[in-house]
Amino acid sequence: MDTTTKRGYTASKEQLLNRLARVEGQVRGITRMVEEDRYCIDVLTQISAIQAALEKIALGLVDGHLRVCMRGDGGAQVDPDEQVDELMGAVGRLVS
Amino acid sequence: MDTTTKRGYTASKEQLLNRLARVEGQVRGITRMVEEDRYCIDVLTQISAIQAALEKIALGLVDGHLRVCMRGDGGAQVDPDEQVDELMGAVGRLVS
Amino acid sequence: MDTTTKRGYTASKEQLLNRLARVEGQVRGITRMVEEDRYCIDVLTQISAIQAALEKIALGLVDGHLRVCMRGDGGAQVDPDEQVDELMGAVGRLVS
Amino acid sequence: MDTTTKRGYTASKEQLLNRLARVEGQVRGITRMVEEDRYCIDVLTQISAIQAALEKIALGLVDGHLRVCMRGDGGAQVDPDEQVDELMGAVGRLVS
Repeated sequence: MDTTTKRGYTASKEQLLNRLARVEGQVRGITRMVEEDRYCIDVLTQISAIQAALEKIALGLVDGHLRVCMRGDGGAQVDPDEQVDELMGAVGRLVS
Repeated sequence: MDTTTKRGYTASKEQLLNRLARVEGQVRGITRMVEEDRYCIDVLTQISAIQAALEKIALGLVDGHLRVCMRGDGGAQVDPDEQVDELMGAVGRLVS
Repeated sequence: MDTTTKRGYTASKEQLLNRLARVEGQVRGITRMVEEDRYCIDVLTQISAIQAALEKIALGLVDGHLRVCMRGDGGAQVDPDEQVDELMGAVGRLVS
Repeated sequence: MDTTTKRGYTASKEQLLNRLARVEGQVRGITRMVEEDRYCIDVLTQISAIQAALEKIALGLVDGHLRVCMRGDGGAQVDPDEQVDELMGAVGRLVS
């Protein structure tokens, strides 16, 4: 990355990487549960936990991205309408 | 597991494990994107892809579990009302 | 309806109708907010409240339907696999 | 409303009111279905249709609000960080 480009998650990159590592571990945990023929409902509970973790990560990314956009930090000459189109595409995918 | 116990995913266990392996790879892919300071919106798109994959896995688990319950395969003397309570707990966590 | 046919919501029909009446009132409330040019975020908060109410209603319907299916009350000769297909279609639409 | 205040939905207010009128009609339609003891799955399908309609309305409101915020139209002296906090609260409620 161009060292002047700032991402919405730059300030919290370590925290984000930790959360992703935890999600990866959770997915491996589910694989282990399936290998051990664990009860469906218990597997489902763990999947819901991952979904909640991913949702939190995604909302954090939207939050950080929005702050960069609103301050115009993300590289100056971006058209605001294009930024909104792009962000709404992402939010629409999260919501559905 | 008791070899006579049948899980809702027993018949499609290989497919389920493959899907989980793919999700694990997708999570690692996102970690790489963050390490490379990739654009927030692109990271979000990948998170939505994982969420869609997990949702599909979860619905497959509910489907298989339901079939086992409806046929009474999952170990005979289970109370149907308890089965519904348990399954609705899982569905409620998926929906919210 | 054939008086012998039992729906999953038959026992709680009054409660269900009350909840639907409340949702209808909530939708009218949002219409009023928009007519009065109220703040976007406040309108969104009310929409989320309706979504939560509808989700609760939907989960209640799934719950009641499942209990009828599991007990085989809903008219005898139904194929369990068809019942699961049908119900999973409905659950899939709720989840996404 | 102060005639100079612009909401994110001001330009599409008629369309928004039409959509809300349609949702209100859909809720009444579900009430009728329940009164007529219609099949659970058909009621659930209609609820999912309302949820999709509300989601579309909500995303339209977020979209319009964001455009007003990004252009700084919504009344000048608003703190961008407060705007993001407020909007993320709304998006978080939609997503969950």
